[in-house]
Amino acid sequence: MKAIAVEPGAGTPVLVEKPRPDPKPGEALVRTLRVGVDGTDHEVIAGHHGNLPDGADRLVLGHEAVGIVEDANGTDLEEGEFVVPTVRRAPNGTNEYFERGEPDMAPEGKYVERGIVDGHGFMAEYFTSPAEYLVPIPERLAPLGFLVEPISISEKAIEHAIASRSAFDWEPESAIVLGNGSLGLITLAMFEEVLEIDRTYCLGRRDRPHPTIDLIDELGATYVDSRETPVPEIPDVYESIDLVYEATGHAKHAFETVDALAPNGVGVLLGVPEPWEFEVDGGRLHRELVLHNKALLGTVNSHRGHFEAAIDTLSQLPTWFTDEFVTGVHGLEEFERAFDTGDDVVKTAVEFSRL
Amino acid sequence: MKAIAVEPGAGTPVLVEKPRPDPKPGEALVRTLRVGVDGTDHEVIAGHHGNLPDGADRLVLGHEAVGIVEDANGTDLEEGEFVVPTVRRAPNGTNEYFERGEPDMAPEGKYVERGIVDGHGFMAEYFTSPAEYLVPIPERLAPLGFLVEPISISEKAIEHAIASRSAFDWEPESAIVLGNGSLGLITLAMFEEVLEIDRTYCLGRRDRPHPTIDLIDELGATYVDSRETPVPEIPDVYESIDLVYEATGHAKHAFETVDALAPNGVGVLLGVPEPWEFEVDGGRLHRELVLHNKALLGTVNSHRGHFEAAIDTLSQLPTWFTDEFVTGVHGLEEFERAFDTGDDVVKTAVEFSRL
Repeated sequence: MKAIAVEPGAGTPVLVEKPRPDPKPGEALVRTLRVGVDGTDHEVIAGHHGNLPDGADRLVLGHEAVGIVEDANGTDLEEGEFVVPTVRRAPNGTNEYFERGEPDMAPEGKYVERGIVDGHGFMAEYFTSPAEYLVPIPERLAPLGFLVEPISISEKAIEHAIASRSAFDWEPESAIVLGNGSLGLITLAMFEEVLEIDRTYCLGRRDRPHPTIDLIDELGATYVDSRETPVPEIPDVYESIDLVYEATGHAKHAFETVDALAPNGVGVLLGVPEPWEFEVDGGRLHRELVLHNKALLGTVNSHRGHFEAAIDTLSQLPTWFTDEFVTGVHGLEEFERAFDTGDDVVKTAVEFSRL
Repeated sequence: MKAIAVEPGAGTPVLVEKPRPDPKPGEALVRTLRVGVDGTDHEVIAGHHGNLPDGADRLVLGHEAVGIVEDANGTDLEEGEFVVPTVRRAPNGTNEYFERGEPDMAPEGKYVERGIVDGHGFMAEYFTSPAEYLVPIPERLAPLGFLVEPISISEKAIEHAIASRSAFDWEPESAIVLGNGSLGLITLAMFEEVLEIDRTYCLGRRDRPHPTIDLIDELGATYVDSRETPVPEIPDVYESIDLVYEATGHAKHAFETVDALAPNGVGVLLGVPEPWEFEVDGGRLHRELVLHNKALLGTVNSHRGHFEAAIDTLSQLPTWFTDEFVTGVHGLEEFERAFDTGDDVVKTAVEFSRL
């Protein structure tokens, strides 16, 4: 079967031939339909993130997949059922985090991330997976099933943000997404269309006209150009913000979030930056966190419950949004186009098998 | 009546004569028994924190009080009942935070803090308070009732910390208190004696022998000398820590907490430092927060529910601990001794009226 693999740092994914995998007991064989491409894939390609599986010289990419069960192999799944795979697997069978259904809380070394860290991904015509990591998705949502994984990341982030404010009465009226990449934009859509937050903002550093800024406008959110309004100035120019969602990986934003937050607000951090030393007014930031009960939470990955919530969220996103958001679904014969980062690209996927 | 007041920045509290207050409708008159002294009082005295009430040239100190109802004035309280007052009041009658019982979540400008910000404190022979801000305490605990307010601060901090980790399975097995001042030590006692956390640590920068280090030893905790083991090295020398409680006001500790934390851990920040610019490896800290799901929460003040929890906690602290912890209760004739910061002082109070 064909797969899309990369030698991390080599810069270009290539089509490779691999044997079709055989499901082990407890595993199902899945025929891959579509696999999304995101910023993490580009970081893996560039060699900035991720790790090859033992003995491999290339990593099969892809962690945002949707497929159809080809061989249920005695599991509870049914052949022909549409499924979305979760991403993390236990390196040696299992461990406490996987046993309690919280692989997203496992520390480094206690997980494999398919397509990212130590494990091959889903960008192949077939893949196998333990049935417990395959989440059923209704057929009508399957064409967009590759959006479930990124949405699940935000389901977790928002769940943790809300939990962190659950000891008091907190209902966010304003939210900003830092970053107008694909994760940022789909999160903005969740804020607007599902959570129905009154006033939403999205920070970017792109000139109009741009398809991502069109999406921000059409969602009814306010575009904040970080070149005109740096993060710490957002309260003066717009308002202080109850919920800040950082999806830039720009480390200064993690600290500037404290200034953008309203009293009792929470900032969730999702970016994974490289080391970078810079100066902060640590005294002022510390004081501001304390005197205004502010919180900063890092969050990574997601568990099956978040995938299930994401499928529900996907069903609530308006068609006009997903139509504009997905700028390209490319067949294997032109898979390279899915990795283009051109200015008109928002979200792409590779199609391995027609629906 | 006599009161202890200070001209902020003047450096020395003095005994002043004030008229005995008359309770307004809904208020009770309380005869003050004891009022504790803490780091915030010393910051107010030094002029680093707090604000004078309108028109006043001196601030009556004291926010850690216990008293006895002298005149219930038609409220639900009973004369002779022992009570502890909460600290915050609404500046103009009320506002949304006070209406929902969460004055601790009010932003600056929306509260008066008695004895600290814009309002006179409880260091007087009598004080009045709306009955809803007077929390009954059993007679047998009244001699230590001045510990309820500081314990309530940690009740809130711990409540928020646990809430922030409530979206997953989290049970802290290790905790460290940064700072061996009186708030730090009583919080360490809560960790050991009430929360029963397996392994506890307390960071300080004092030489043995010292009464605070004796208390740390006797509680079964480990003393960490920050001059030998800086905060970021705690995981290497001891272990990474599930719950970090910062009570130093040293701004670098707020950032170093990220390094001390175990995966999925939470750091609560309580210090109120002055502005201070320094360099951080912001990229590494940001990445660490994200990849290990770490959280940092600022928290300030407490509400009536936390005072009620604190009274329950106080009832669970062993007598040997409170006996050693309270190093002096000084009558009005020697009130200055309660403000001594000598090396043998841990926690002091002024006694306004014998129990």
